[in-house]
Amino acid sequence: MPQEIERKFLVKADFRPYVESSTRIMQGYLSSVPERVVRVRINGDTGFITIKGISNDSGLSRYEWEKEIPLSEARELLSICEPGIIDKTRHLVKMDEFTFEIDEFHGDNDGLVIAEVELESEGEVFRKPVWLGEEVTGDKRYYNSKLAKNPYKKW
Amino acid sequence: MPQEIERKFLVKADFRPYVESSTRIMQGYLSSVPERVVRVRINGDTGFITIKGISNDSGLSRYEWEKEIPLSEARELLSICEPGIIDKTRHLVKMDEFTFEIDEFHGDNDGLVIAEVELESEGEVFRKPVWLGEEVTGDKRYYNSKLAKNPYKKW
Repeated sequence: MPQEIERKFLVKADFRPYVESSTRIMQGYLSSVPERVVRVRINGDTGFITIKGISNDSGLSRYEWEKEIPLSEARELLSICEPGIIDKTRHLVKMDEFTFEIDEFHGDNDGLVIAEVELESEGEVFRKPVWLGEEVTGDKRYYNSKLAKNPYKKW
Repeated sequence: MPQEIERKFLVKADFRPYVESSTRIMQGYLSSVPERVVRVRINGDTGFITIKGISNDSGLSRYEWEKEIPLSEARELLSICEPGIIDKTRHLVKMDEFTFEIDEFHGDNDGLVIAEVELESEGEVFRKPVWLGEEVTGDKRYYNSKLAKNPYKKW
């Protein structure tokens, strides 16, 4: 099975000078059960459906399946998702051979900024940018599926 | 939104002389919540992912979205589905301009045989085959998603 290895961090300082591109993302969940998350996403003008299995014990590896779908279908599917649509801007920052995805949340999750980096293996080493804060990999509160139900403003 | 209008019946007599084709179907659910069912199906050697919204009050109309996916991906996705995989043989019987889909269940739903017919409108009239029994349209016990959790053998 394809696996996704990701580490997730809070952002503690201004990352904006390093941003290469930014896209608005809207996403909702048809299932937010961690063993079988089904996500609908609109990324700019492209739709996606993504299915994720349960994480391994470290929270680093996770089965992931994704298909691009027409924007109109993504909109229809978003309309039947669970209450709590996530609205965020995703900024890309490159450093060495790594791309950091920085999610700046809006709406009920306003004020939350999270950076993720995808790795080849669980032990892979990378240089930490100055704006990178506390690691929150595996902390379920920061799952987007959890933020949809229990947004940052309520913490 | 695309809508599916279907009526569902028990089968009370031998339908086999009328069968035109039969396929084995395995299916599981990533979500079995009626408001947003996410189904993975293997139909012969083809995979599908299907998403269904909530039914209207009569139980006849339902939003449905479906995509064909590779068999290998359908197998992966089946492995992360909720417990209770449905195993059935689907027989097709044609009568006038209608095609009846007759599902003969196996495993924990052995003994259950259900016929479905898809209509153009809720009021459309069709001739009833001799083997067609009691109508069970809208009876949630007969939803495949319910049969996965509460199989016929336990009724």
